[in-house]
This record gives sequence, C-alpha cells and structure tokens, in this order.
Amino acid sequence: MAFKSITEQWKIIKRGTEEILPENDLKKKLQHSKDSGQSLVIKLGCDPSRPDLHIGHGVVLRKLRHFQDLGHRAILVIGDFTAMIGDPTGRNKTRPQLTLEEALENSKSYLEQAKVILDIKRLKILYNSSWLNQMNFGDVIKLASHYTVARMLERDDFTKRFKSETAISIHEFMYPLAQGMDSVHLCADVEIGGTDQKFNLLVGRDLQKEYSQKPQTVITMPLLEGIDGIEKMSKSANNHIGLTEKPEEIYGRAMSIPDNMIYKYFLLGADANSDTLFRIKTELTDPLVNPRNVKRELARALVSLYHSQKDALKAEQHFDRVIVNKTEPKEMPELNLTVERSLVDVIREQGFTKSKSEGRRLIIQNAVRLDGEICRDINTILIPGKKVVIKIGKRRFLRII
Amino acid sequence: MAFKSITEQWKIIKRGTEEILPENDLKKKLQHSKDSGQSLVIKLGCDPSRPDLHIGHGVVLRKLRHFQDLGHRAILVIGDFTAMIGDPTGRNKTRPQLTLEEALENSKSYLEQAKVILDIKRLKILYNSSWLNQMNFGDVIKLASHYTVARMLERDDFTKRFKSETAISIHEFMYPLAQGMDSVHLCADVEIGGTDQKFNLLVGRDLQKEYSQKPQTVITMPLLEGIDGIEKMSKSANNHIGLTEKPEEIYGRAMSIPDNMIYKYFLLGADANSDTLFRIKTELTDPLVNPRNVKRELARALVSLYHSQKDALKAEQHFDRVIVNKTEPKEMPELNLTVERSLVDVIREQGFTKSKSEGRRLIIQNAVRLDGEICRDINTILIPGKKVVIKIGKRRFLRII
Repeated sequence: MAFKSITEQWKIIKRGTEEILPENDLKKKLQHSKDSGQSLVIKLGCDPSRPDLHIGHGVVLRKLRHFQDLGHRAILVIGDFTAMIGDPTGRNKTRPQLTLEEALENSKSYLEQAKVILDIKRLKILYNSSWLNQMNFGDVIKLASHYTVARMLERDDFTKRFKSETAISIHEFMYPLAQGMDSVHLCADVEIGGTDQKFNLLVGRDLQKEYSQKPQTVITMPLLEGIDGIEKMSKSANNHIGLTEKPEEIYGRAMSIPDNMIYKYFLLGADANSDTLFRIKTELTDPLVNPRNVKRELARALVSLYHSQKDALKAEQHFDRVIVNKTEPKEMPELNLTVERSLVDVIREQGFTKSKSEGRRLIIQNAVRLDGEICRDINTILIPGKKVVIKIGKRRFLRII
Repeated sequence: MAFKSITEQWKIIKRGTEEILPENDLKKKLQHSKDSGQSLVIKLGCDPSRPDLHIGHGVVLRKLRHFQDLGHRAILVIGDFTAMIGDPTGRNKTRPQLTLEEALENSKSYLEQAKVILDIKRLKILYNSSWLNQMNFGDVIKLASHYTVARMLERDDFTKRFKSETAISIHEFMYPLAQGMDSVHLCADVEIGGTDQKFNLLVGRDLQKEYSQKPQTVITMPLLEGIDGIEKMSKSANNHIGLTEKPEEIYGRAMSIPDNMIYKYFLLGADANSDTLFRIKTELTDPLVNPRNVKRELARALVSLYHSQKDALKAEQHFDRVIVNKTEPKEMPELNLTVERSLVDVIREQGFTKSKSEGRRLIIQNAVRLDGEICRDINTILIPGKKVVIKIGKRRFLRII
C-alpha cells in the first residue's frame, strides 16, 4: 500500500506520546515500511480483568488507531493468560483470578467499548493464552534465562519493595517475561503502553533481541488524570469519563475538570490535531479568553468524538439549562409509582446510588432536591399519583408520574 | 513391619550427619512409623550429568542405605529434568545440557555404581522429568508464587553474587523450586543431601508446607575431602576414590590420605560403626600407635566394603610389595609390541596418560621407569622383542613382551 510521507506519519505518531524508545529506530522502520510497502506490526496489550473503559484507557487505544489510520497492522493482545491465573498469593488485588468464561465475557465487553475508538474491522485480536499456555516448565526456564534478577529488580515498584523489605514473590517476575514473550510471538515492530508499563515494554524489547528478532520500538503514553485533575482516572475513584457514556454525562463531566487540565484533555482525550492544539494553547494564555469557553469547546469535542456533533450541541443546551440556568432538562427518566415507596429505596433501585446508605448520605449532604427544594428528611416517602421531580446531585433527574 | 527401637534407629541415622533439621521432628516421625508399622519415605536426589561416582558421592548414598536397612522406603530421584535443560545461558558448567539418551545412559551408569552401596532391589528409582515436564507456565507461576525473591537471595551463592553484582539469571531461581517440587510430588518424609544442598532441601520443606503437606526433615551430610585432604573430592581434581575402582587402587589411594583425614574417612567413607569409631579415635590420640597402621586398617576396611575381605588382604600385599618394598607386582598388564613405538605413544594408548604431553611431563618429572631405572628421554623408543617393565608413577605397571 501507499503510505504517507515519514514527516506526516511522524507528526501523528509523535503527538501526545511521553517517550518513543528509541525515536530513530522507529523512523528507520517507517522508512523501510514505506520503501517496501510493508506495514508495521503494532502491539497493544490489554487486561481483561478490568473491563470498564474510560477515556484514560482511550489514550493508548487512540494511539493504536493512529497507526491503523496510517495503514499499519494493529494487534490487540488480550491478556487472558494472566487473567486466568491471577495472583496465586491473592495479595495483588489488581490481578484477580478469572475463569475462562469470565475472561471471555470481559474481553467481549472490552471490545464492545474499544470499538468506539479502534477500526475493529482491521484489528487483529489475539488471546495470549493461546501461546503462553503451550509453554512447559522447560520453556519457562529457557525464557527466564534471558533476564537477570538484578535487572528485574530495577523495575520501580520492585526496587521500592525490595528496599523496604516488602515481599516480592518470584512469580511476579514471570509476568513481565510473559508479556515480553507476547512481543516475541508476534514479532512486534512497535508496542504501545502507558508510562506505567514502560519497564514491561522494554522487557519485550530485550527478549526479542535474545530471540534474535529486531527489537520493538516502545511508545509510552502519559497517564490521564481524572476529572478531579489529581488522581489517575479510574472508575473506582469516580473521576472518569466512560467511553460509552451518554452525551450529557460526557459533557457535564468534562465541564468539571480544572482549567489546568484543558490542554491535556484536548491532546489525549479529544484527539485534537496539531492546529487545534496550537490554537488552544494560545487561547489558554490569552487573558481576554475565558477558559470556561475553551472548556465548553473541549466538552463539545469529546461528545462529538464519541457520539456526534449534533449530540454535542444538544448536550451543551442540556448543560446550560440544567446547570447554568439551574432549570430542569426537557427530557428525563420517568417512573410510574404504584405503591408508596421510600425516596432512598427508589433512587437506589433506579441506579442513582449504589446503596441505601449512599442515598441517605446524599440527603444529609443536601444533594437531593424534590421539585427544586432541598430534601432534608432521609425517611421521605413518595406517594403514587403525587408528581414530583427528584434531582440527585448536579445533573441527574427522575420524574415520578 | 517391625522396626528397631527409636534409640537404635537414631544411633545409625545420626551417625556422620552434619545437621538434622529439625531433630525432634524426625524422632516423632520415627515413633509414628514404629507405632503404625508404616515406613518413612526417604528421598535422595542425584544429578545424572556427573555419572562418575566416588566415595564422596557415597556419603549420602550410604545414609540412604542406612534407612533402607532400618526398613524405610528409599527413593532415588534422578534429576533428568534439569539435566535435559541444562543451563540455557551456558555459563554454568556444572549444568551441561544432556539429550534424553545421554541422560538415560548416564542414569544407567549411575545406578550401576550406586548399587555397590544401595539395596537396589528395594530402591524406588524415579525420573523427575515425569512430573516436572507436565507442568505448564501457569503451574510454574503458581509454584513460584510460594517463594519470595528475598528468601531465594538468602542462598549463599546467590547472596555473594548479588552483592558482588555478578549476574544471576532468573531461571536459576527455578531449579531450587523444581527440586522442592520433587519433595511435594513424593510426599517425602526425609530428604538427604550434602551440606551444599542445605538451602535447596529447605526449599522443599517450605514448599511442602505451602502445599499443605507435613514438611520433610532435612538431613545434611558433610562433604568428604579428597585424598589430598584439602579439596572436595572430585574426579577432575583426581583426588577421588571411585566406587567401582579395583582393590589395589582403592587401597593405594586410601594410603595416601593425610593422617588428619583418617577418622573422617572411617566415618563417612568406610561406614564404620560406633564401636570402631570410638576405638579409632582412641588409637589416633595414643602416641604409642603409629597412625600408618590405623590407615592400613582404613584401607583394608574400604576394600572390604567395596569388594571383599580377601581382596583387602591381597591389595595390602600388593601395596607392600610394590610401594613399601618397591618391587614389581606379580601380575600386570602386558603388551605384545610388533613394531617400534615411542614410549610416550604407548603409555597414552594404554590409558596411563590422557595425552602425549602428559606422558612427556611425567618423564621430565622422573615419574617413569624402565626396568626400575628412571627414564629421562622423552623420545624413548620401544623395540619389539625387547622385554621391558614400564612403571608409571607409584603404582602402575605395563610389561612389554
């Protein structure tokens, strides 16, 4: 196929990256690919034990998509091997043990979400259990012979734990090797990952050398802070913007980020191009521009990206009506009540809270309103036939009819 | 079956050991075995990559034999798994890579020699590849999860290498785990090994706990110095007494040990009982006893043990004739020479030296005699029909006829 010029490709590939290790290496590969008409093999590994995707996960997916758009071969490696083994010691909560069914179910859900970013038709999806499960003890010994203990202990978290005499189980050394083996198996030219994956990605590079392959180029992407602007984005911290969230939710959540995050969200979340990024940077330093308006553009850009431009305008109108003008939205979920129910029960059942105690807490914090009035009674009863609009937090509504 | 009293068993088991870890544990196991009539499972691992056995190897084999004589179940584990993998980095020369055929061939040779010590009919022989080869990557990860990096680094040689920044490959951590897995597989009650194996044996103990088994008792045996009394006994240092060596060779080599080794050789090499050991100790401190005579008893005891009492007496006579009285032995190998040959060639061909240069070196060192006269010419030619007795070193002869 005909590839774009190296300069054009580079501009897109480089955008938003933290590091490209080594840069020159990738440039050579791109040149060779263009000369020979052969696309590069780009690897991205994913962990099926955490299937709820947000725009934080989107950062690496987006980079993979860039390569797809440039005509290269994207491979998504589903890490079902480690997911099925989990952490045998049970100490590491980020590595729960999944059954084969759970792993497959999670992968399906992962792909369902990832397809809002990736060109799923041109995506190769592979499960690393298919080759790692084939390895026997002897193969593992050979694999492990390619890496030294001292080098493995250079990984940040290992160094810290070793120094502070916090136990490191030997099997933890196996995971970076397994992940590296994936690169060997695929003969990957490039691997993409978050900055927290840098060490593991470099292990893949080292192992490829040991197995007489051309070592992959490692591309690390920055971690995206959540909408609080402080913590890493995660569902558990509830500071995330889900990839398949509704337009209003994306818009509203985007509007709540601190101003110093606007540029980073344009770059990593909204996938803005260089021209836009340059303009945004200029506007943000211009004292005559209200950053709130830049943030509104960001919120629209995010909704446009994951839904459509039309949805973005609608979401903005909704936001203005509900938040800015503090009026009710035109449309909201409705519930036809047939028997008397406690307010706390109803909002829990409708999914606004996770537990009754969360509902009570919200009421105590004055975060629940009935027809615009703060509700202060945690024992409030809703009566059938008595219409009322319940507002939970800033943006969520339920109409009782 | 009916077992001997614990006191009697203990006397034999304890003899010659370096450590029993923990002693009380083993006493309880023996008591339980006696009470229930169930014999204990005693494990000894061996390395088929070094198939030439000497009385240094005999130390642990002898201890295993003690357990056999006491009615327990001896299992010899042939470590063919590691032998077939070897050291993938090729750095560790004590762990060469063998083919399956070589490993089997070596094991046969090992057993051929070991049977001079063990009761081979009641010996269970197992190859650890039969269970270790069954383990896949996931099983290995689970196994490795039971041991920490810090604990593994406590092994003496690892500690030293880690401190001196000498590379330790991660696969080296796998071998103690594999060996420990053998104990788990066998549900071993006791494992015997040299003091240099103490750490590995304790790993087996730890792993058994992790796999909810009663942990094995670890018995370590001292390493036996070679006949030089300094280095560890080994064929490569040529300070060994081979298990299947001829009576004269055993006798002669035993007579060359330094006096301070006599007791240890009685204890670990000649398997002397407590009464003999007590007497020997007394004699060795008695200024009226010539230690040379005690050593003669040792040499006879060793030949008696590996051949017969009759052989021992013959070997002693041979020794007195050849070494003490410096006369020729009655019998010696003969060679019918048909063409002129150089002396150096002939002694090499007949296996007295490993190379021609070794032959030349021996001549230069005045260690070769022709009919009792020192031969000083490295170019000496032997002529057909001219009978001569060649003496190489102190005890080896060849008659040219």
